[in-house]
Amino acid sequence: MRLYVTPASPWVRRVRVAILELGIEDRFEFVQTKWPHSWGTKTVAHPADFVAATPAQRIPALVTPDFSLTDSHSICDYINAELGGYRLLAREGVARWRGLADISVASAIIEAQILRRAELLRSERERSTDFLGKMRERTLRCFEALEKRVPVAGSAFDLAQITTAVACSYESWRYDADWRGVAPKLAAWYDIVAERPSMKATRPAETPQT
Amino acid sequence: MRLYVTPASPWVRRVRVAILELGIEDRFEFVQTKWPHSWGTKTVAHPADFVAATPAQRIPALVTPDFSLTDSHSICDYINAELGGYRLLAREGVARWRGLADISVASAIIEAQILRRAELLRSERERSTDFLGKMRERTLRCFEALEKRVPVAGSAFDLAQITTAVACSYESWRYDADWRGVAPKLAAWYDIVAERPSMKATRPAETPQT
Repeated sequence: MRLYVTPASPWVRRVRVAILELGIEDRFEFVQTKWPHSWGTKTVAHPADFVAATPAQRIPALVTPDFSLTDSHSICDYINAELGGYRLLAREGVARWRGLADISVASAIIEAQILRRAELLRSERERSTDFLGKMRERTLRCFEALEKRVPVAGSAFDLAQITTAVACSYESWRYDADWRGVAPKLAAWYDIVAERPSMKATRPAETPQT
Repeated sequence: MRLYVTPASPWVRRVRVAILELGIEDRFEFVQTKWPHSWGTKTVAHPADFVAATPAQRIPALVTPDFSLTDSHSICDYINAELGGYRLLAREGVARWRGLADISVASAIIEAQILRRAELLRSERERSTDFLGKMRERTLRCFEALEKRVPVAGSAFDLAQITTAVACSYESWRYDADWRGVAPKLAAWYDIVAERPSMKATRPAETPQT
């Protein structure tokens, strides 16, 4: 299976961490993609194989012989079920819905982080200070909500925890550590899970532009 | 269960159509939310119950006694599994992944439609013609991809078909019918499913601003 990736994307990272936690990295060929900063407002030219893999032209994208999954949620659902024996998210029942509830909130942070990044890549004239503020407010509200459901120490590093940890990491890497002020218990939890080999092996780095 | 909705949102509509197709509408209390057009760039003031339900402050949001699901994907997953006996999407196996593959592409259209809408609600000065073009290009590429996998006439109106039909409908309602030119077979299929009671009962209308 081919997985299209970048070193910066938190959507890619949650998939990569899930793969490492399950110990199934040898099942994938990882294909790096390049993104000039114009991606914030313009369609970027990509190699034909990537264009064929995903009509939305976004990462991550997973190509199998039978189908292509072109968003992080469906890729994680597939990996967890088909390759992971539901070890990262329960197959059904209240454990699954509670997991998805947390993933919803952590994913809303990641979405806001990416929209904020795209906004910052705009020319100054087209950049909206209001919109940047809206995304920042959403991010902090979601961290505040996650502070009320910090994982118990030693509990399984599942898809909800992975998504949360990736959101924490990206916020500090790309923006600032203000989230630690609104979510101190979450920050203490994050500092522990950040030392897991899967997290250390996937630390964010700038995506190549060319 | 309380489901927070608007009459315009395609993310809400796919949940509402799923509920109607399963015949389980009596299980939900539908709560209308209001969105002044400033939502494109600013955090909007909402009643306390909505703020408590979803830290991202987005619709749809589903509140159950045990957990809250705050995005369309997890809500559909829950409804399909827990209330729908997996009638709208297979529980596992290649049928599930093929369904999610189609949902990925249709959802990329809906996401682009909403981002384009938010962009059009900006002041003219902060509006990016490039970004509007990027979203339009993505939308048309995804419709082109869906044209290669038009559902067979008479096949089950499942979650993939629901999501696709909602994307088709929103495009014509909010923007234009250019997608019909790039996806004529899909358009012919859409004209048939648009007559289903679930689709007719949820035709989009402007969301109240106050």
